[in-house]
Amino acid sequence: MSPSLAHRLADYAAVAADLGVDAVALVPGPNFMRAVRHGFGGNERPLVLMIPAKGPAAAVVPNLELGSWELVGFDGAIFDWRDQDGYAKAFDDLMRHLAISSVAVEGQVMRVFVHHAMLAAQPDLRIVDAEREISALRMIKTTEDLTALQRAIDISERALTRTLDTVRLGQTEKQIEQTLVQMLFEEGADGLSFPPIVAAGDNSARPHAHARDDYAVKAGDALLLDFGARKDGFCADITRTVFLDHVTDEGRAVYDTVLRANLAGLDVTRAGVTAHQIDDAVISVLEASPFADRIRTKTGHGLGRDVHEAPYIMRGNHMVLPEGTVYTNEPGLYQIGNFGVRIEDDVLITADGYETLTHFPKDLTVLSC
Amino acid sequence: MSPSLAHRLADYAAVAADLGVDAVALVPGPNFMRAVRHGFGGNERPLVLMIPAKGPAAAVVPNLELGSWELVGFDGAIFDWRDQDGYAKAFDDLMRHLAISSVAVEGQVMRVFVHHAMLAAQPDLRIVDAEREISALRMIKTTEDLTALQRAIDISERALTRTLDTVRLGQTEKQIEQTLVQMLFEEGADGLSFPPIVAAGDNSARPHAHARDDYAVKAGDALLLDFGARKDGFCADITRTVFLDHVTDEGRAVYDTVLRANLAGLDVTRAGVTAHQIDDAVISVLEASPFADRIRTKTGHGLGRDVHEAPYIMRGNHMVLPEGTVYTNEPGLYQIGNFGVRIEDDVLITADGYETLTHFPKDLTVLSC
Repeated sequence: MSPSLAHRLADYAAVAADLGVDAVALVPGPNFMRAVRHGFGGNERPLVLMIPAKGPAAAVVPNLELGSWELVGFDGAIFDWRDQDGYAKAFDDLMRHLAISSVAVEGQVMRVFVHHAMLAAQPDLRIVDAEREISALRMIKTTEDLTALQRAIDISERALTRTLDTVRLGQTEKQIEQTLVQMLFEEGADGLSFPPIVAAGDNSARPHAHARDDYAVKAGDALLLDFGARKDGFCADITRTVFLDHVTDEGRAVYDTVLRANLAGLDVTRAGVTAHQIDDAVISVLEASPFADRIRTKTGHGLGRDVHEAPYIMRGNHMVLPEGTVYTNEPGLYQIGNFGVRIEDDVLITADGYETLTHFPKDLTVLSC
Repeated sequence: MSPSLAHRLADYAAVAADLGVDAVALVPGPNFMRAVRHGFGGNERPLVLMIPAKGPAAAVVPNLELGSWELVGFDGAIFDWRDQDGYAKAFDDLMRHLAISSVAVEGQVMRVFVHHAMLAAQPDLRIVDAEREISALRMIKTTEDLTALQRAIDISERALTRTLDTVRLGQTEKQIEQTLVQMLFEEGADGLSFPPIVAAGDNSARPHAHARDDYAVKAGDALLLDFGARKDGFCADITRTVFLDHVTDEGRAVYDTVLRANLAGLDVTRAGVTAHQIDDAVISVLEASPFADRIRTKTGHGLGRDVHEAPYIMRGNHMVLPEGTVYTNEPGLYQIGNFGVRIEDDVLITADGYETLTHFPKDLTVLSC
């Protein structure tokens, strides 16, 4: 086993020990990628890496993945299984081999069929959802992480610049979305962090809107674009809202409020701040405005190998945020039936302040189009 | 509630009744899309639609999704929750409202944290993994489904043609992958069915390989491309393997064997065949060849809103396949350290035979590049 893989697996053994459980189970996803640096599809074939608090790790691996698994450089026990035989025996053998009585899992990643497969092999196994503790290992970004994340963000911003240059009144939201996606891949994206949100007019008031192919953008619309490139396993996430042709006084006032909220969040950001404090600074600005009834979301979330990860930037979350944390600062105001505005930056917390990794201008923009 | 939504929800109520459980729970994913025709991201915020065997459906919905949820046209009870408050109370209220004692879930889609949220609200709730029964409603494709799927496949094949035209010796696998992805979006893809596999030389022997940025394709390489466009919620999935500049006798013999296996599978395909019978026809050809030790996978899987869905085409699965089923016929032979070949068609089962929805030529192709 390579020293770096052994070192990373030891991190998860320590999480198990801290939690007082016998092992951590990882399935393909962002924690798995951090641990083994190789991706495997999360399909109908279970693949589980079990890292005990003490002793060597072991894995259940589909037989057809053995050629890819080789690249991981793992020297623990492997219980492989073939489609024709099913995976029950592999889980039986794994559990017998490990002789554990409790396991911590990633509740946001592991699907129920794997949970059931572990229980079928060992009905008295205690399964604990330790999403928070397992994913916490991804919260402080390494230099290597930040380089990859910055690359994903730079790609996203170049694609946004080029896309906005092509927007014309009368285009559908769907057309604008397709341009954006093409530009992302032309600029070097490996994939998308999530299906982009391109929403104009009343659709911009839906925080997770879908682009419509039957709505042509028109003068006076707010146009909200929320998207990100995925590059080398890291996810960008940026939102900008622009106005087409002209902006109403209401639009200007709402935009200004959201921007002030975004800046208020940046203002309190430094190592040692809590997630609660950032959200409180942001939301207080929105609450003090005439648009308080348009608040629908918290400030943001952590960002890295997963597009939504810890820390969740919301009131009541008193987690202290250390240097090296990256979070999204994305206040918004949304009035159903009218319009919405969101401005989202990706923010790195530093010892004495912050650095925004997104650099796209945030001044109110009215596109001539 | 629109009659069509009510009708589709009744399908899931019937599944619950058949299983002898009190309800079916759907979470965002392919079954959810079939039921409500609106997508919601599967992120850290639980959204669950509960359809009882008897009585009206009810849902837990994140507050910020209410604007999108409106589009569903659902008139049952909704228990929404805000980030600041958490979702425990919404689940408590939902379970008290429904008064059920058992629920069937999609084990391949639902994640453990939702499973735990339901159990926290009602510790004696019996949760049954009914992935197979719930997803079975997607197995027989409607005319509308087939139109969308064909569109996704046509996009994929046009992108493949254009990509192969640009392949040159000395390009990296990653460069070829990026060209392919760009072409898919240019041809109209909404997204990718899965991260494409573009693998040459020894990498083609890994059924789920990742494109390398440090391997330049060279004369004599097998080049395997396995990918698909996603369009209007449906997933294409096609594989072709070509040889670059020239092909060895071994390459030709392996290719010929895989093609004969693919054709043998088509030959037995008609309504009423079992999944076992198709796989047996395919695998028997491979087993009878000099390359039997290179078999690593079953014949294929169902295809539709999900890129891997029922029916799984493998020996031992005696499910009878009706007219309207779509499956992938994708035999392959893989020798680790040497090379691999896979040929994959998307196949519609008809009353008296089959129709291949993929039309890309399957004759052995040696690219002059």
